[in-house]
Amino acid sequence: MAGSTYGNIFKITTWGESHGKALGVVVDGCPAGLSLTEEDVQAYLNRRKPGASRFATPRKEDDAVEILSGVFEGKTTGTPISMMVRNKDHHSADYSKIASYYRPGHADYTFDEKYGFRDYRGGGRSSGRETIGRVAGGAIAAKILKELGITISTYVTSIGPISIAQNRFDLNEAKNNELNMPDKVAAQEAAAYLESLIKEKNSAGGTVECMVQGLPTGLGDPVFEKLDAGLAKAIFSIGAVKGFEIGDGFAAAHATGADNNDAFGIGADGNVIKKTNHSGGTLGGISDGSPLILRAAFKPTPSIASPQETVNKNGEEITIEIAGRHDPLIAARGVVVVEAMTALTLVDALFANASARMDTLKKIYE
Amino acid sequence: MAGSTYGNIFKITTWGESHGKALGVVVDGCPAGLSLTEEDVQAYLNRRKPGASRFATPRKEDDAVEILSGVFEGKTTGTPISMMVRNKDHHSADYSKIASYYRPGHADYTFDEKYGFRDYRGGGRSSGRETIGRVAGGAIAAKILKELGITISTYVTSIGPISIAQNRFDLNEAKNNELNMPDKVAAQEAAAYLESLIKEKNSAGGTVECMVQGLPTGLGDPVFEKLDAGLAKAIFSIGAVKGFEIGDGFAAAHATGADNNDAFGIGADGNVIKKTNHSGGTLGGISDGSPLILRAAFKPTPSIASPQETVNKNGEEITIEIAGRHDPLIAARGVVVVEAMTALTLVDALFANASARMDTLKKIYE
Amino acid sequence: MAGSTYGNIFKITTWGESHGKALGVVVDGCPAGLSLTEEDVQAYLNRRKPGASRFATPRKEDDAVEILSGVFEGKTTGTPISMMVRNKDHHSADYSKIASYYRPGHADYTFDEKYGFRDYRGGGRSSGRETIGRVAGGAIAAKILKELGITISTYVTSIGPISIAQNRFDLNEAKNNELNMPDKVAAQEAAAYLESLIKEKNSAGGTVECMVQGLPTGLGDPVFEKLDAGLAKAIFSIGAVKGFEIGDGFAAAHATGADNNDAFGIGADGNVIKKTNHSGGTLGGISDGSPLILRAAFKPTPSIASPQETVNKNGEEITIEIAGRHDPLIAARGVVVVEAMTALTLVDALFANASARMDTLKKIYE
Amino acid sequence: MAGSTYGNIFKITTWGESHGKALGVVVDGCPAGLSLTEEDVQAYLNRRKPGASRFATPRKEDDAVEILSGVFEGKTTGTPISMMVRNKDHHSADYSKIASYYRPGHADYTFDEKYGFRDYRGGGRSSGRETIGRVAGGAIAAKILKELGITISTYVTSIGPISIAQNRFDLNEAKNNELNMPDKVAAQEAAAYLESLIKEKNSAGGTVECMVQGLPTGLGDPVFEKLDAGLAKAIFSIGAVKGFEIGDGFAAAHATGADNNDAFGIGADGNVIKKTNHSGGTLGGISDGSPLILRAAFKPTPSIASPQETVNKNGEEITIEIAGRHDPLIAARGVVVVEAMTALTLVDALFANASARMDTLKKIYE
Repeated sequence: MAGSTYGNIFKITTWGESHGKALGVVVDGCPAGLSLTEEDVQAYLNRRKPGASRFATPRKEDDAVEILSGVFEGKTTGTPISMMVRNKDHHSADYSKIASYYRPGHADYTFDEKYGFRDYRGGGRSSGRETIGRVAGGAIAAKILKELGITISTYVTSIGPISIAQNRFDLNEAKNNELNMPDKVAAQEAAAYLESLIKEKNSAGGTVECMVQGLPTGLGDPVFEKLDAGLAKAIFSIGAVKGFEIGDGFAAAHATGADNNDAFGIGADGNVIKKTNHSGGTLGGISDGSPLILRAAFKPTPSIASPQETVNKNGEEITIEIAGRHDPLIAARGVVVVEAMTALTLVDALFANASARMDTLKKIYE
Repeated sequence: MAGSTYGNIFKITTWGESHGKALGVVVDGCPAGLSLTEEDVQAYLNRRKPGASRFATPRKEDDAVEILSGVFEGKTTGTPISMMVRNKDHHSADYSKIASYYRPGHADYTFDEKYGFRDYRGGGRSSGRETIGRVAGGAIAAKILKELGITISTYVTSIGPISIAQNRFDLNEAKNNELNMPDKVAAQEAAAYLESLIKEKNSAGGTVECMVQGLPTGLGDPVFEKLDAGLAKAIFSIGAVKGFEIGDGFAAAHATGADNNDAFGIGADGNVIKKTNHSGGTLGGISDGSPLILRAAFKPTPSIASPQETVNKNGEEITIEIAGRHDPLIAARGVVVVEAMTALTLVDALFANASARMDTLKKIYE
Repeated sequence: MAGSTYGNIFKITTWGESHGKALGVVVDGCPAGLSLTEEDVQAYLNRRKPGASRFATPRKEDDAVEILSGVFEGKTTGTPISMMVRNKDHHSADYSKIASYYRPGHADYTFDEKYGFRDYRGGGRSSGRETIGRVAGGAIAAKILKELGITISTYVTSIGPISIAQNRFDLNEAKNNELNMPDKVAAQEAAAYLESLIKEKNSAGGTVECMVQGLPTGLGDPVFEKLDAGLAKAIFSIGAVKGFEIGDGFAAAHATGADNNDAFGIGADGNVIKKTNHSGGTLGGISDGSPLILRAAFKPTPSIASPQETVNKNGEEITIEIAGRHDPLIAARGVVVVEAMTALTLVDALFANASARMDTLKKIYE
Repeated sequence: MAGSTYGNIFKITTWGESHGKALGVVVDGCPAGLSLTEEDVQAYLNRRKPGASRFATPRKEDDAVEILSGVFEGKTTGTPISMMVRNKDHHSADYSKIASYYRPGHADYTFDEKYGFRDYRGGGRSSGRETIGRVAGGAIAAKILKELGITISTYVTSIGPISIAQNRFDLNEAKNNELNMPDKVAAQEAAAYLESLIKEKNSAGGTVECMVQGLPTGLGDPVFEKLDAGLAKAIFSIGAVKGFEIGDGFAAAHATGADNNDAFGIGADGNVIKKTNHSGGTLGGISDGSPLILRAAFKPTPSIASPQETVNKNGEEITIEIAGRHDPLIAARGVVVVEAMTALTLVDALFANASARMDTLKKIYE
């Protein structure tokens, strides 16, 4: 089935393989009149680029984006925006080995089972490079949100056993360190931890948190199109994500109602506020005016250089060592992908909500 | 936006409010030739019925389902199956109070913000009774799965601070106790814990796990329609769910690659197997032949009888006590809902996968 | 596949068979705050009711609609509106014969081929009674349009060889005669023609035209979601429709550009107008401010009482005579169905268009 | 709204403007294991290429397609196939004039009304070049159909007042003449007619017919996803199409039931056949085993060089003459577009039908 399109009204369709000619995205349903340049998109892509950190794969890629359609005289026209990134560093490796066996923790086996064969070069479509399209599309979504006064912050909250401390939480710090942690001390500890794992030819998992401020109340629809359900799918569609929660998440399962309920009150400006935010910004699947807080669990990078047991396509049990240096951590490079998927989901919810009330429709059409 | 339809090829559309005339579902895209009776569906509905346990609301409802279309001479015809449950016990309460204020932890406030007003009787569309449609639809999905050799088991793994012990895990036990826990000891402890909470006019959260066996490899599509992404949305669309994970889930974020990767091997029957199942049955978003394991975190019931701070529609801060007896726990009654949503998602994935390969298509059409 | 849901943002899901327990529809995505009563819907259903005319089947059905959800205190709440009509007159006939053979011009054969068997009672799901759900849903769509200043007129323009004359065109007349023709003379001629066909146990085709006034410019999207493409599908999904055109339609294929182009000019109010309307109200798939004009060709009723050649399920060639009296004409009862499908499509296009421009979004959210 | 994606399971997403950098398509949901080369696609694109005929615009474009993803070692992998055609001849014209006024019969005015402004170069997204993506996608769909034994023939049946004669119908002839007419005499008359129109700076409409052979019975779903409804939308989404019919189409509206019903009989091979094909290959919206016959009415090219009245953006009435030479006829170049849209729709229907019966599902999964 067609699984490469995301969104109902604001849609992206991504394409491309790790070692194919190019990767890209078509963004459809973007409203006309948004100022947009390649620089807007490139800024996002640079945040996920390989080679930017000690803790990311040293693959050399410019990941320079080209906008091919949908923008005229600096503004979006309402027609689909096609964007493309050419692959450059894709002839270096020898993939004859990888073709013959199934890497643990990767999709090699399941692709073969599903499709009968696979593009084995660098993971093909199931490579992390697949996220280029998401991030390019998300950059546009984020720009729409910004125009409407909505901002997103995304950062790493834990790496392996090291978590940030709430009393050291500093959003600016998340931009200063290469691990995107909003806690300088934790970032230093995590860096040391990762260095030790690299020596052991091992890798680490981590958690990423995303906070959205300025979101209007009323986004999301009851039942199947709850805002949190949409976000759950969006975030879980990112490779390596194994858990998702909103607000207190799993901790709420261990709490009591008296502790977990957020009391309502009247804020300084006379508006209704929640005095706490255990809910993470949604009630009944609809945004409640508090900051939206979501969290994703990323598994450790499955590509590790230490020996692993597996089987080959002849049905023989073998031991392999995956050559080359890989990211010892997915979570840090996942930050911008989580942000992109969140932005895409919120824009779609904003558009869907435009027809929720007769009085809004009359405002538009009368 | 229309948020009451779930699924791409196998679709359900649910409708109805807690205190309206009836609730129901239209199941569309059900293949022709499935034996189906009202009893098949009723068996599922009985698992979510109120009044069946000390720990569930004593509201009296038969929840007797009527199949109105789509079945002829005992078999599905391929046309939409409409099912309906009439509400009976819905005139008793006085809802004038609830109309005037916002219950903490409920969707009262967000519905008002989104739609301008709300059906305040018993929570309207955001009531737990909304799940009747899901469960009735899920009963049909589960029957399709069963015909294809796929079975689902769902149970409660923790209530408040009490978790099941893996060494006492017993699936049959989950059917014996009213808390659906596969561990007799834990169930007894949890029951005592809930009794104490009831006395305190408080409520508990809990976690629900679902295990699917017999699933073919190859279900789910790369990128946005990953099987786990679909399940994440399905489960997160259930009211009160605040967290979702698959396999090791959040624990994977604290593990290393060497620990988290599942080695492949050759099983007794000569087929490829995974020696462990940290992944929870999917790799790259595609089912990998191991049991599918997912987990949902349910928040505590927000309706508690102890005093709570909130605001009314006049913008005044008030203190309320929610009258009546409510479920002290959502998780146990959520078990069948989790199972239903899982079944619906799997059936859709099975159908989507039918066109993944040219050789399958040739088998169908030549 | 699920084929019983129509619409992208404003959706209807219909269900029910000719001789099942009931037929109905779930309308999802209806904005909150629309005044709605059962009478609003009943008025539309009465226009398609059997037994209302000499030229319609004498089957006795009240077709009394019940609204089961989605309306509270006289207004839509934004949640799904479920509506149902119980079948009454459905035990009279003996369907053992019809079960054994394939009626020419009906879907008996194709249902059997597709699904392996069929609900043969009165055509099952492929009966004209299937349109009850569409018409009930369309009544709500039409009410939304009316609130936004948009009106729809639908009428029969030809029956067999008899067409209305443009110089006698009178919209009011279409409501006066039982054939819904906006031309008294043509209606009388057509009635005489139908009387003669009834005597011959034969039936007639006809064409239906729909005109929409007050439609804003800008509805419809370029490429695949052109307004006319959406209408084409909507109208062609009605059983018995074999042709669809917009504006000059097939006549445009015989015209030259100089004749077919509509010149633009400045109207009395200073706005841009089209001086003619060969286009029928759309340019490039987007509404152009002129009245929308569409036309549907209905084939003759396939159920005729004269002898016909066919085959039975044993593979034998036989001659049949279809018992009972049937509509000698589908077109007249198709009028309200065409109107319903047009209304549904327009409402969906209105909602989709809400996010076409950044400045509209800012008006909604800022 | 996102209007650039077509299809439910087999989907294409097209992008690009007449004078942008490139145009393209992403084909998603293509089954794995289909042999595919750029030549397969180029052969289709060459059929719509400008400059290939006296009667087509002399714009110079190679329209050379590049496959960017989704194909590995000569076969489709199941992942999205991205294809692109770079624009070359797009800097020649001066579009300052066209920017200031609204061309009659074009989408200039409606784009401005919908989006606030437009990419006025060569019609932007509403140019005929938009069909490049459809045709490239359709080439893949046609290849899938061919593998399943289904063939499509498409040809011009009338140009202005000249229609083909059924007794001279010759499918091979349609490939020999530049007007794609299956009647040598009619093609010569039409050519003469077009020459005279070119001298008059005028243009002609035409009709295109498409015939599909080898289609299995059972495609299409009752109610809204009727095969003919899907085709109606597909064909009507092509710019310049103003009418669509299937089988006898509008002629059926003037026929009687006795004439229009197709009698069933037993064919030479013992299978059920229809003795005539007034229905055009569908009954109840489901393919009936007879050849599928559909017809599209194309309006005359709106770009004509003779003087036309219109208005400019300052609200002044002006007279314009559209410079340059344009196609005097859209229908002939529309042939391959009709074929592409038909192929895309049929592939999607084939995939949707895979889950219509439990026994088919058991064949796939057991």
